[in-house]
Amino acid sequence: MSAADLQARLDAIVDRMRAAEDWGAVADYIPELARVPLRQFAIAVAPAEGGVAAAGDADVPFSIQSVSKIFALAIALGRAGDQLWNRVGREPSGSAFNSIVQLEHEQGRPRNPFINAGAIVTTDEILKGRAPRDALAEILGFVRAAAEDDDIYINDRVAQSENHHGHRNYALAHFLRAFDNLANAPELVLGTYFHQCAIEMTTRQLALAGRFLVGAPGLPRLVSTARIRRLNALMLTCGQYDGSGEFAFRVGLPAKSGVGGGILAIVPGRASVAVFSPGLDGYGNSLLGTVAMEQLARQMDWSVF
Amino acid sequence: MSAADLQARLDAIVDRMRAAEDWGAVADYIPELARVPLRQFAIAVAPAEGGVAAAGDADVPFSIQSVSKIFALAIALGRAGDQLWNRVGREPSGSAFNSIVQLEHEQGRPRNPFINAGAIVTTDEILKGRAPRDALAEILGFVRAAAEDDDIYINDRVAQSENHHGHRNYALAHFLRAFDNLANAPELVLGTYFHQCAIEMTTRQLALAGRFLVGAPGLPRLVSTARIRRLNALMLTCGQYDGSGEFAFRVGLPAKSGVGGGILAIVPGRASVAVFSPGLDGYGNSLLGTVAMEQLARQMDWSVF
Amino acid sequence: MSAADLQARLDAIVDRMRAAEDWGAVADYIPELARVPLRQFAIAVAPAEGGVAAAGDADVPFSIQSVSKIFALAIALGRAGDQLWNRVGREPSGSAFNSIVQLEHEQGRPRNPFINAGAIVTTDEILKGRAPRDALAEILGFVRAAAEDDDIYINDRVAQSENHHGHRNYALAHFLRAFDNLANAPELVLGTYFHQCAIEMTTRQLALAGRFLVGAPGLPRLVSTARIRRLNALMLTCGQYDGSGEFAFRVGLPAKSGVGGGILAIVPGRASVAVFSPGLDGYGNSLLGTVAMEQLARQMDWSVF
Amino acid sequence: MSAADLQARLDAIVDRMRAAEDWGAVADYIPELARVPLRQFAIAVAPAEGGVAAAGDADVPFSIQSVSKIFALAIALGRAGDQLWNRVGREPSGSAFNSIVQLEHEQGRPRNPFINAGAIVTTDEILKGRAPRDALAEILGFVRAAAEDDDIYINDRVAQSENHHGHRNYALAHFLRAFDNLANAPELVLGTYFHQCAIEMTTRQLALAGRFLVGAPGLPRLVSTARIRRLNALMLTCGQYDGSGEFAFRVGLPAKSGVGGGILAIVPGRASVAVFSPGLDGYGNSLLGTVAMEQLARQMDWSVF
Repeated sequence: MSAADLQARLDAIVDRMRAAEDWGAVADYIPELARVPLRQFAIAVAPAEGGVAAAGDADVPFSIQSVSKIFALAIALGRAGDQLWNRVGREPSGSAFNSIVQLEHEQGRPRNPFINAGAIVTTDEILKGRAPRDALAEILGFVRAAAEDDDIYINDRVAQSENHHGHRNYALAHFLRAFDNLANAPELVLGTYFHQCAIEMTTRQLALAGRFLVGAPGLPRLVSTARIRRLNALMLTCGQYDGSGEFAFRVGLPAKSGVGGGILAIVPGRASVAVFSPGLDGYGNSLLGTVAMEQLARQMDWSVF
Repeated sequence: MSAADLQARLDAIVDRMRAAEDWGAVADYIPELARVPLRQFAIAVAPAEGGVAAAGDADVPFSIQSVSKIFALAIALGRAGDQLWNRVGREPSGSAFNSIVQLEHEQGRPRNPFINAGAIVTTDEILKGRAPRDALAEILGFVRAAAEDDDIYINDRVAQSENHHGHRNYALAHFLRAFDNLANAPELVLGTYFHQCAIEMTTRQLALAGRFLVGAPGLPRLVSTARIRRLNALMLTCGQYDGSGEFAFRVGLPAKSGVGGGILAIVPGRASVAVFSPGLDGYGNSLLGTVAMEQLARQMDWSVF
Repeated sequence: MSAADLQARLDAIVDRMRAAEDWGAVADYIPELARVPLRQFAIAVAPAEGGVAAAGDADVPFSIQSVSKIFALAIALGRAGDQLWNRVGREPSGSAFNSIVQLEHEQGRPRNPFINAGAIVTTDEILKGRAPRDALAEILGFVRAAAEDDDIYINDRVAQSENHHGHRNYALAHFLRAFDNLANAPELVLGTYFHQCAIEMTTRQLALAGRFLVGAPGLPRLVSTARIRRLNALMLTCGQYDGSGEFAFRVGLPAKSGVGGGILAIVPGRASVAVFSPGLDGYGNSLLGTVAMEQLARQMDWSVF
Repeated sequence: MSAADLQARLDAIVDRMRAAEDWGAVADYIPELARVPLRQFAIAVAPAEGGVAAAGDADVPFSIQSVSKIFALAIALGRAGDQLWNRVGREPSGSAFNSIVQLEHEQGRPRNPFINAGAIVTTDEILKGRAPRDALAEILGFVRAAAEDDDIYINDRVAQSENHHGHRNYALAHFLRAFDNLANAPELVLGTYFHQCAIEMTTRQLALAGRFLVGAPGLPRLVSTARIRRLNALMLTCGQYDGSGEFAFRVGLPAKSGVGGGILAIVPGRASVAVFSPGLDGYGNSLLGTVAMEQLARQMDWSVF
């Protein structure tokens, strides 16, 4: 498909989304996210052959939140290797992203690295033996290298606000610690974790940053091919919390969502796709973002199945 | 890859598996399965371009058990369309295949069509408005058409034995009925369900029967391309019960397992693969079958990711 | 207190209850209970010193339902002794009376004999080695002996109706059987159980039938003093399902409720008290019956604490 | 019974307990409790008519831990009245004392004031509008007044150690806060809570301190008669965690246990009884303490039933 054709499709999707009646609801658990204007939509595609096509509010920075978990997981696996899986599982949880129930039933080993408990363990692994600022520098460095763009920053106010309202995450961290599955103090790990989640990127940047998971020649190569497949497998089975099965069914692509309204999806060997719309559905995933992903995937005949 | 090369690989896998120390444990909840000899292994591949390669005990018939759920689901979707999803979900359950806990928490709507409760609902849908024998005739007919082989039968003794020992499935069926999510009497639905699970096929036949999910020209075409993708998506996220995430991570292919020791995996556009080894792992999936799938997928560079 | 004073108090309670605005809601899961007129109320007291005082609709027979579990438990303990506790626990469940969740978590051993699963085990114990009719004859005989009144019968239509709509109880029975905690076929046990629950008594008869738990001289003596205390302990901790703690807090007496609207309470050494009002609260216990028990207990200074 | 007869019975119980083979296991989650010598046993009775009889290691101070929850509850009810029940329930939990599962299912409202989550809410209520030191002064003052003995202190080292190892309690506190059911910062509430649990008393002192719950003339009168009954009701249904039903069944008295090995039991109108033996059973209650309570209650014919 020509770049012009792709651009036309993205523009058409933006037009359809902007005409939507139901935009979902912006995350309201912290003031910084609650005040994000609801009626925003952006989509961007970074094809394997290079370049990036974008439409809508594609240059508006937003809080990537849980999308950061995929970058953190890639780093933690690079540091700890398969040892990481002693501390966290690889199964869909069947529960909400912030549930603590399973953690009690399963003795402090989170189901997967994308629910909050598992992501806290992942960040704890990255923190091992060094200061939060060094860990954050590595995470930010990885994201910038992936996007080939140094103009990506952490929003400190968002991180502070998360910390102030993050009692449920503190509960998870202390629970992990009680089961000896947290090497660092909860305050330290969560301080790092909240900053990692507070990375801000534009939709265009996010599409570019996802290219390391596409597994095609000429793209930034940050992890091995075998690991790319495994990261994609985890995104497909666990990337949208307890809406993951539904997303796989409707869209058919590995993807990771964040409560900031971003979703990063991978078309193996073909493209990295990012969408942004801050209104969420009942699972905490971007409502219009999911709809747009479904439409684009169908039009492009993109599916791993 | 030439047919001879493929055959050589399958032979090599059979040799490696036969040298395994741990064969897992045969399902022992009914006498008919408990007496199946443990040390059996077979693998078969039906490539998109036609033919079938097989090795090991590939002509030994075995009880396909839960692998039948994928055929039943295809039929039920053909009859009810998306209405079926009002009665059963599309999410991984995060629980054991025979768990009733989630069913109580979620008011009688099973998480997906591959856990037992969801499969019972699927069979109930196929039964609507007709006798068990007619429903079973359609299921068996579908399987035979898929395999292009009429020499496939139901083992009535296995079905009787399941019925005799199936108290946990009876509990599920009555529970579904209590929530008005079962149209037929539990005895009727389970009678049908146990017979459907008691279909016997060889590994070679099963690989052939899976071709309708490959989505390539020249193969038996029993469902639409869009539905093939959705069936594969469900297999990938839910096909191995609470070992589905692990299987996606290690193998990277949509697949459905059965306690009889069979696994059917699909390489979209490329091939249908079947393995059989009756020893199970802790999740109730074939132990060596999973190992063999992982080895074959790696060697062939088969992965959806 | 003189008999006249007691009668005056009961009359006053009836007057207050009849003026109530909220009568709760009649159980509607079977037609036979759903058609019971809501605005009925009765109270009766059988003091240790003999006689019985009653007021309101005290001579209207009603379905005692789960109140029957206390008689069945007394009989099962008489037959099996402490062996019974190998099959069923003695702890409050913290869950609804018909929940199956705990049963899965705890491998088929019900928490106590008053939730449905535990009562089904109790009836199964009574059934051991004999026909349902013989077991029912013993249960009915026990109740008649306790009340010293042979004019007590089982309403067969209610039993049939329970059986017809009892899918949730069938689920529990099959689940128990799957864990080898049911000696008889589910159909047999539930047939007996539903008949036991369908015993009909008047409020006056129920108060008289409860005297064997008062533990005072001159009253029908059907179980030992030590067992009386234990039965009362179980009623206090588990007798009102997940409203037991609340009832102990507000009323302070051991008691057993039924969805037919009856409650039997014991004042150790002093009296047996029965109330009847078919409208239930959110826990499935008689709404006005509980209020009346609280008022009477406070006025009489009756509390075990 | 004469004082000499009572003393003889207590001495005989001490002799029997000291001959026990199984002493249970000392709580080992903090070093300060882990180093308590296992083979200690004490029993003391404070009859309604005055005085106190004691035997065994009755003058050894021990950490009362969760027994403190009954004093704290009495204080919190005195301050907040029935408003407290908006924040915490009155039902047995059916779960372990430190479980967080129910808290998630029930939206941050603990089942009762004796499981840890509920006790944290209780302490939070006492803390409202004042400094921890003032709250602790009131708690300690209440205990001293109840025992009529000022020689009762808080072991600061135990409190520090609890704080250091209290990740599970921190998880509970943050979880409560996430549901807006904690008015003060988790650090503040837990700091107070751990100090309250670190009160040390001898068995003799504890028996004396329990007299305010006996409800007889001439004893320290710290709460109303109506409230005494309700506190006793809560102790009976919830006082021994998920071993409460068993304790009610075997002993038949309201009681509260602590992981330090102490149990306080009340014989309404008759006596306050304390036992101490640091070895615990599977529920976290004193093993020999429970056995001794059962023997004493049977010999004295003490039971509320």
